[in-house]
Amino acid sequence: MTSAGNTIDDEDTFKILIATDIHLGYLEKDAIRGNDTFVTFDEIMKQAMQNEVDFVLLGGDLFHDNKPSRKTMHCCIEVMRKYCMGDRPIIFEILSDQAVNFSHSKFPWVNYLDTNLNISIPVFSVHGNHDDPTGTDGLCAIDLLSCAGLINHFGRSRSVEKLEISPVLLQKGNTRIALYGIGSVPDERLYRMFINNQVTMLRPREDEDGWFNLFVIHQNRSKHGATNYIPEQFLDDFLDLVVWGHEHECKIAPVRNEQQLFYVTQPGSSVITSLSPGEAVKKHIGLLRVKGKKMNLQKIPLQTIRQFFIQDVTLSEHPDLFRPEQPNVMLKVMAFCQEKVEEMLEEAERQRLGNPLTPEKPLIRLRVDYSGGFEVFNTMRFSQKFVDQVANPKDILHFIRHRESKDNIKEECMDFEALLSRPTSEVLQLRVEDLVKEYFQTAEKVCILYMCVEDADQSLVNIPLKRDRYQRFIQQFRDSKRNTAEEDEEVQEAIIRAKAHRDHRDSVRDDDLNLSDEPADIAVESDEESVCLCLCSVHLQNTNLKEVCIYVCK
Amino acid sequence: MTSAGNTIDDEDTFKILIATDIHLGYLEKDAIRGNDTFVTFDEIMKQAMQNEVDFVLLGGDLFHDNKPSRKTMHCCIEVMRKYCMGDRPIIFEILSDQAVNFSHSKFPWVNYLDTNLNISIPVFSVHGNHDDPTGTDGLCAIDLLSCAGLINHFGRSRSVEKLEISPVLLQKGNTRIALYGIGSVPDERLYRMFINNQVTMLRPREDEDGWFNLFVIHQNRSKHGATNYIPEQFLDDFLDLVVWGHEHECKIAPVRNEQQLFYVTQPGSSVITSLSPGEAVKKHIGLLRVKGKKMNLQKIPLQTIRQFFIQDVTLSEHPDLFRPEQPNVMLKVMAFCQEKVEEMLEEAERQRLGNPLTPEKPLIRLRVDYSGGFEVFNTMRFSQKFVDQVANPKDILHFIRHRESKDNIKEECMDFEALLSRPTSEVLQLRVEDLVKEYFQTAEKVCILYMCVEDADQSLVNIPLKRDRYQRFIQQFRDSKRNTAEEDEEVQEAIIRAKAHRDHRDSVRDDDLNLSDEPADIAVESDEESVCLCLCSVHLQNTNLKEVCIYVCK
Repeated sequence: MTSAGNTIDDEDTFKILIATDIHLGYLEKDAIRGNDTFVTFDEIMKQAMQNEVDFVLLGGDLFHDNKPSRKTMHCCIEVMRKYCMGDRPIIFEILSDQAVNFSHSKFPWVNYLDTNLNISIPVFSVHGNHDDPTGTDGLCAIDLLSCAGLINHFGRSRSVEKLEISPVLLQKGNTRIALYGIGSVPDERLYRMFINNQVTMLRPREDEDGWFNLFVIHQNRSKHGATNYIPEQFLDDFLDLVVWGHEHECKIAPVRNEQQLFYVTQPGSSVITSLSPGEAVKKHIGLLRVKGKKMNLQKIPLQTIRQFFIQDVTLSEHPDLFRPEQPNVMLKVMAFCQEKVEEMLEEAERQRLGNPLTPEKPLIRLRVDYSGGFEVFNTMRFSQKFVDQVANPKDILHFIRHRESKDNIKEECMDFEALLSRPTSEVLQLRVEDLVKEYFQTAEKVCILYMCVEDADQSLVNIPLKRDRYQRFIQQFRDSKRNTAEEDEEVQEAIIRAKAHRDHRDSVRDDDLNLSDEPADIAVESDEESVCLCLCSVHLQNTNLKEVCIYVCK
Repeated sequence: MTSAGNTIDDEDTFKILIATDIHLGYLEKDAIRGNDTFVTFDEIMKQAMQNEVDFVLLGGDLFHDNKPSRKTMHCCIEVMRKYCMGDRPIIFEILSDQAVNFSHSKFPWVNYLDTNLNISIPVFSVHGNHDDPTGTDGLCAIDLLSCAGLINHFGRSRSVEKLEISPVLLQKGNTRIALYGIGSVPDERLYRMFINNQVTMLRPREDEDGWFNLFVIHQNRSKHGATNYIPEQFLDDFLDLVVWGHEHECKIAPVRNEQQLFYVTQPGSSVITSLSPGEAVKKHIGLLRVKGKKMNLQKIPLQTIRQFFIQDVTLSEHPDLFRPEQPNVMLKVMAFCQEKVEEMLEEAERQRLGNPLTPEKPLIRLRVDYSGGFEVFNTMRFSQKFVDQVANPKDILHFIRHRESKDNIKEECMDFEALLSRPTSEVLQLRVEDLVKEYFQTAEKVCILYMCVEDADQSLVNIPLKRDRYQRFIQQFRDSKRNTAEEDEEVQEAIIRAKAHRDHRDSVRDDDLNLSDEPADIAVESDEESVCLCLCSVHLQNTNLKEVCIYVCK
C-alpha cells in the first residue's frame, strides 16, 4: 500500500489512470517520429500497471486516423494485451446495467467480467473526433478493441437528436463513482443540443448525492467560434470532476469552475501533433484517487515524449544586429536564427541527459517575425545544417508577419471604420438590425455578418466578409469596452435588447440566462479566408464585467 | 462420445474442422449478398463448436481483402470470440517449440495456452493470397487476430529465398500430428523454390514415422501456366494428408496421389466468388478425424450457401426453335432464355424449401453460345424480369462464342497451319530452334512464342501472339500425339534433345527429371488477349505416355 498526496491507497480508494489523445499512428511513416505514439502508449499502460490502478480512463482519440493502419492497430492490441491482461484481481464492482452502458457492443458487458478474458486493468474510453464511428454500421476503431475484449467503449449514443447519458456505476469499498461520458460529437451540434435541453445526465436513483460524479468529454474547450465549443457552464453542476479530452495542451491540474462547483482536468495529448506553444507544455498523465467524494490527482510526467522547443523572435527588435536596408542583412539574420536554434538544441541536450527514455532528436520551432521590411530566406538550406540533430528538419523555421499596417485595404473596410469612429455608447445603443442595415448600405457583398444573441442558428443575417477587415475593428471595439465598469448601464441595456430577441423561443430553459452569459472571448479561426461575425451581448461570469462584443466564428 | 464413419471419437482421436477460402467481406457492400460471408463463417464456427472439434484448420483467405473493412474485421472478431472462447477443455498438447512455430508473433505461443485467454477451440490458419502479409512490417489481417489471441497464424516464413517448414507438433492421447503449412507465396516463386530444392520440411526427431503428417497449402493446384501452380509431386511423400486451399471448387473427398502416396483434400471456398461451374458444386467443410496414422474425413454440407445454378445453351443447337435468318429471332431467343432461367429458379425454389438457412435469392447464370450468326440482345432489359428473384440481376446472362471459324484471320496464322500440315513425326524431329526460325520466316511480329524446356525463365525466344490463333493448332497437335504409344521413340528423342538444353544448369537436383516430368496439360488463361506458348517435352508420370507438347501460359 502506497500513499500519495493526502490519499491513502486503501480498500475504499479508486485509483484511476487518466490520459487522452494518444493519437496512435500519428506520423507513423515518419522515419524519425514514426514510433513515438506507440512508445508513449506503452509507457502510459506500463504506468497503469506499475501503479496498480483499478482502471484506465481515456478521453478519446486513442487513434489518430479514423481507419488506423494495420501496424497501428497491431501495436495497440499488443500493448493492451500485454498490460491489461493478467492475474491481478479487480476489486471494484459495476452496479449499473451493463446492457445499457454498452448497448452498442456485441458483448455488452465490461471486459473484466467476461469469464473468458483474464483482465487485470480494464480500460474505459469514449471515442474522439479522430476515431469516431463512421459508415452504415456506425463502427469506430475502438469498437474493434471492444469486440476483442480489450477496451470498454462507453459514452456512445445512437441518437443524433438527443443524448441521455446513463452512467457506468462503479463501487470500490465505500466509494462509488458514477462515470459519465460523451464520445465526440461535432461541437456545433452538441452546443445546440445543450442549448435545446437535449442533453440529459441520468442520476442513480439510490443515494443520489453519495456518488463521485466523473465525466469524460471530448470537445473543444477553448472557443473556436460562438457555438463551436462546449462552455463548461453547459455541464451539470452535480459533477465532481470533468476529464476534458481533445484539447492538446496539458492542463492536468484540476481547475475549479467556481460557478458550477466542479473541477476540470485537461490531461492533454501524449504526442506533439502541432509545433505550437500549447504542445510545448510538459506532458503528463494523471493518477486520480477517489475516496468517497474526495479526490486527488497526481501528475505523472511522461518520459518518452519527444522534446519540443519553440521560440519566437522579432527581427525588428534587434536593430543593433541587423536592419532591413543593410546589404548582407539576410546572412546576418540567418546566423542569428542559427544561433537561436543551436541554443535550443543545447538546452534539449542538457535536459535529455537526465532521462534515458527521451527520444534523441528534439522538435525545434523558431518563429521569425520578419515584419518591418525584412525578407524571408530559403528555409530548406537553413534546415540542412540541423538535419541530423532535429526530428523536424523540414520545418524548423516559421516566418510570420505581425502588426503589419493594412493601408492597402483600408478603403475596403471603411464601413467598419465608420462604425468605430462613433462613440462607443452610440454603438451599444444601436440595434443589431440597425447595424446590419447600415452595413449593407456601404458594404460590398463578399462577407458574412452573423448576428446572434445566443446561438448562431437563429435570426441571422449573413453578409460575406474577408477576415483582414474585421480584426482591427474588433480589437478596437474590445479595447474601448474592456474593463470600463462605468458603461455597465449601457451594456445592460444591450443585454435587455438581446434578451428580447430570444423571447420568441418556445422552450426557454430556466438557466438560459446563465448559458448565454458565459465568459466571452474572441476566437479567430486561423487559415480561414471567410469567417462570420457574431454580434452578441455578453456577461463576463465570475467577474463584474459585462460587455457587448462582436464574435468572430468560422 | 459420438461415432461417425469408421472412427470412434475416443481420447486418441483428433477431431479437426477443416475449411478454407471463407473470403470474409466478399461483396460486403452488395445489398443482397453483403452478409453472405459473415453468415457462413458463423455457420462454420458453429459447426466447430457443435462437433466439439479439437481445433479448426483454415487454408487461407479468411479475408477477401488484404485490408478488410472495419465491418469485416468486426464481424470476424465477433464470431471468433463467440465460438472459440469458452470453458470446454482442450485435451491435446503441443510438443513443438512454439517460439519457432509462431516466431513472427508478438505472443509466440498457441492461444489456448495463454492463461489470460479461455480458448475452447483453437483456430490454426495459414494466410492466403488475399490476406497475405504486406508492407514494411510484414503484417497481414490475420496477424491482428493473432495478436488479439483469436487465431494461431502458422506457416509463415521470413525468407523469400528458402522455406524451412517446422511443423506444429500436436499430441492427443496416442495420436500425434505434425502440422505443416505454407502461407500463400506467389506460385511462380514457390515453384522455383521447389525446383531449386529450397523448400525443406523438417521432421520430428523422435519416432519420425509415428506422426500423422498434415500439410496445409494455399496455391494454384490446377495449372495456370507452366510454372504458375504447384504440382502435387513437389510435395514430400512422407505427408499423409494435404489440405489444399485457394482452389474454390469443393473437392473435399480426399484423393489419393498414387505416386506420392498421400491424400489431397480440397475443401473449396465457402462463398461463391465467380459464376463459374466450379463454384456451382455443392459446398462443404470437412470434419477430419485422425487416430494414429488413420484418418477419416466427414463431409459437412454448408447450409447457408447461396444457391447457384449455371446452365449452358447453344443457340445453333435448336434449329427447330429459331434460326438466325428469321425476322423475329431475337424475341424467340429471349423467350427461350427466359424459360431456361425460370426453370433454374423453379429448381432453386424446390431445393430451398428443404432448408430454411438457404438465402432466399439464388445466383443464376445462363451462358448463351450465340455462334452461328445469332446476335446478342440487351441483357439489362432481360434481367429486369428477375430483379426480385435472383441475387445477381445484373449479370444473369453471359453471351459467349464458341467454335467460330476464324476464316478472316486464317492468312495471319498460316505459319501454324503449315506446321500442322506436316506429319507429326516430322514435327517432333524438329528442334525448337528450327521451329522458331521457321516461324520467324513467315510470322508477323505481334505474338510471343515461348520455348522452354523446364521452366519458362530460361532460354526463351519471345514472339508476340494473339490467342485466337493457337488454340486449334495446339488442339490438333495434341490430338495427333495423345495416346500414340507407337511414337514413343520419337518422343524420347525430343526429350533427350530437351534435356540437352538444360544441361548447362549449375545445380541439377537428383530428382530434376521427376520434377520436370510431371503430368502435362494445356492450361489456357481465360480473358487474356496475349499469351505465351511454351514448347516443352514432357513425360506423363504414372503412365507410359510421353508427349511433346506446346504449353500455353499467361
